[in-house]
Amino acid sequence: MTLMKSWVDSANDANHPFPLNNLPYGVFSTEDGDPRCGVAIGDMILDVTAAEAEGVITLTDYPLFDVPFWNELMEEGPAVWAALRERLIALLSDGSAERAKVEPLLVPMADAEMHLPFAVSEYTDFYAGKNHAFNVGTMFRGPENALPPNWLHIPIGYNGRASSVVVSGTDVRRPWGQLKGPNDAAPRFAPCARFDIELEMGAIVGTSSEGPITVAEADANIFGYVLLNDWSARDIQAWEYQPLGPFQAKATATTISPWIVTKAALDPFRCDTPAREVELLDHLKDCGPMLYDIDLEVTLQPEGGDASTIVRTNYKEMYYSAAQQLAHHTTSGCPMNVGDLLGSGTISGPTKESRGSLLELSWGGKEPLELPTGETRSFIEDNDTLTLKGAAKGDGYTIGFGDCVGKVLPALDDPYKR
Amino acid sequence: MTLMKSWVDSANDANHPFPLNNLPYGVFSTEDGDPRCGVAIGDMILDVTAAEAEGVITLTDYPLFDVPFWNELMEEGPAVWAALRERLIALLSDGSAERAKVEPLLVPMADAEMHLPFAVSEYTDFYAGKNHAFNVGTMFRGPENALPPNWLHIPIGYNGRASSVVVSGTDVRRPWGQLKGPNDAAPRFAPCARFDIELEMGAIVGTSSEGPITVAEADANIFGYVLLNDWSARDIQAWEYQPLGPFQAKATATTISPWIVTKAALDPFRCDTPAREVELLDHLKDCGPMLYDIDLEVTLQPEGGDASTIVRTNYKEMYYSAAQQLAHHTTSGCPMNVGDLLGSGTISGPTKESRGSLLELSWGGKEPLELPTGETRSFIEDNDTLTLKGAAKGDGYTIGFGDCVGKVLPALDDPYKR
Repeated sequence: MTLMKSWVDSANDANHPFPLNNLPYGVFSTEDGDPRCGVAIGDMILDVTAAEAEGVITLTDYPLFDVPFWNELMEEGPAVWAALRERLIALLSDGSAERAKVEPLLVPMADAEMHLPFAVSEYTDFYAGKNHAFNVGTMFRGPENALPPNWLHIPIGYNGRASSVVVSGTDVRRPWGQLKGPNDAAPRFAPCARFDIELEMGAIVGTSSEGPITVAEADANIFGYVLLNDWSARDIQAWEYQPLGPFQAKATATTISPWIVTKAALDPFRCDTPAREVELLDHLKDCGPMLYDIDLEVTLQPEGGDASTIVRTNYKEMYYSAAQQLAHHTTSGCPMNVGDLLGSGTISGPTKESRGSLLELSWGGKEPLELPTGETRSFIEDNDTLTLKGAAKGDGYTIGFGDCVGKVLPALDDPYKR
Repeated sequence: MTLMKSWVDSANDANHPFPLNNLPYGVFSTEDGDPRCGVAIGDMILDVTAAEAEGVITLTDYPLFDVPFWNELMEEGPAVWAALRERLIALLSDGSAERAKVEPLLVPMADAEMHLPFAVSEYTDFYAGKNHAFNVGTMFRGPENALPPNWLHIPIGYNGRASSVVVSGTDVRRPWGQLKGPNDAAPRFAPCARFDIELEMGAIVGTSSEGPITVAEADANIFGYVLLNDWSARDIQAWEYQPLGPFQAKATATTISPWIVTKAALDPFRCDTPAREVELLDHLKDCGPMLYDIDLEVTLQPEGGDASTIVRTNYKEMYYSAAQQLAHHTTSGCPMNVGDLLGSGTISGPTKESRGSLLELSWGGKEPLELPTGETRSFIEDNDTLTLKGAAKGDGYTIGFGDCVGKVLPALDDPYKR
């Protein structure tokens, strides 16, 4: 696959995140317009809601884009997903005969504010990156017992809180929580002192299911992917998570990038999961390349300072694909709905600089990370801005995700004061 | 509080679950009518959707009951909740001048099929009954380590799966799952062999919140209560739950009773939580009686046999109230939404017959329960019907919940076969 040329010039740069090959879906507003559906092309957004209203895009007898989220397209199923992509390529390709009617529907991305691209039905977060699980397990239980006995057999996951999912650019307030250090006599209620990121990908379920589905069916049911930062309060987590898992430690916010990158756009970047250390049971076995080769990084920018890259890794470091996670999610008969969001789990590579959380980068705070400015970080400090970036690199083109940004505001003095 | 008399005769029986004092909210359909909102009064259902359409009930300038769920009323807030209750009492009281226009809006409950009474936004399940936590902890870790260190300081909870919530009467299919017994060399994928109930109450959030709320605010935000059976696959849970908590073990189904019993109806039955063994931090402290004196029981009916009572307990056995659970849920800033459902956790009393799960009743299968028929049960067998019942007993009247029933169907031979 090479660069597909568009008449939108900015889309033809080999390093631009939004070439014609990509066409990711978002929801945007402008000073003179409410949130509506749009597709990114170069530096512009094609107003899909307006395109449908004006008859430039017609997929169904009823409107799909009269609401500010992409769930209604997802509900239509893969044939309509493909029809939209085909139509968008026809409209935006270099030499398109329809350029004149499309051009007025383009809005400069610089003038747009982005919103959550879909209504999040439910949110599940996994723990399915092996280097991350090994690092965290080693810190807590030593290297011999790092991986729990079930880890190589099932993608471990837990239900998260959909109401906490926010779009890139939303400030995140440092939470309060109940804390008790190992040497404290009693717990106390205080601001989180070990606030952290988790670098993840999010997979969006585009087709509902009842009952167990196979890995191949699960892959078919995924609509697309976003970057996902699973903000984590490590000190709250340490005190609360036994025996039923993380709860308030993960409920403050989960930030996603604003553009849904479709499975179709990522198709050339499919790759296999790593070799299995233990053979999986049949219902979870790989049945084709279902991971993706996507370069990922995280930058940290202190208030008033420069951003520096603190993590560089790749989505292919995952042990389980999103399809395997979704298949596992349905084994007990759990109904899955359009708009369900699955977090991959933290994506850490094998090297120190490829660790996807500050917990791992600073080894629980014991080895503070040095920033190029000379500052150090064990965990996030107030007014730090954390940015996740993702890009798949093709032959002369890039599939970008749009940054996933969050600035951490100081905790409130009194969280109960209105 | 004594019995409030209604002109609907059946509502005036001291043991009837639905007197004028109760007025619980449900969603029902009939052979000639789609699902719509109704309120139970004696053996009848007042069609609230029709009552609003005909102008007999008018709370707002726009319709609240033109949808088959009660969320729109909840959105209006406590003043409108109170106005509806006041109006219903005026319409249905003995001697009401409006009887003639109300009577045609009554539907025999025997002719109605019940549906989920509200759209479940998200579902959280707690582990906040001390006898249950102690029993389960003793089985797994011995009596000295039965309660985790955090247990007396926070109501331990985890996020469940809203998509799995079903209304009473829905059959529940025994799930498959990945299982590994302590003596097995490797896990296998097989039908659950230790399928169980958990006797719980569900609290329904009726007012949204952003940021932490106090226990008093949490109590004010609760709209009402239902019975809740948190079906649990104990063998799936044993293999999966470390380190991030229950996932597929709890995702097959959660059954709730069909009628939302309002906080107003339960008000005379408020009681205090038990004495604190360890003082709670201020933000979780009790600030009034926020538990309820509600008798609870569970019956088990084998296929073709008689139902027998296997559990008798009371909601006041809880260590934490729903208000404390909700307050804790918001500590990290977690946004809560109208329609969020909070499971209390299994409600076990101090005696053997008051244990709220088969896991506890049969002590992990070691002491099978004897039914009056001579049959025994360690866990649920195929085609068993499990029924939760709840009633608060007032002076000459009863506040009932409507049964919470589920029949367990055999596992499919091949869960992937369509």
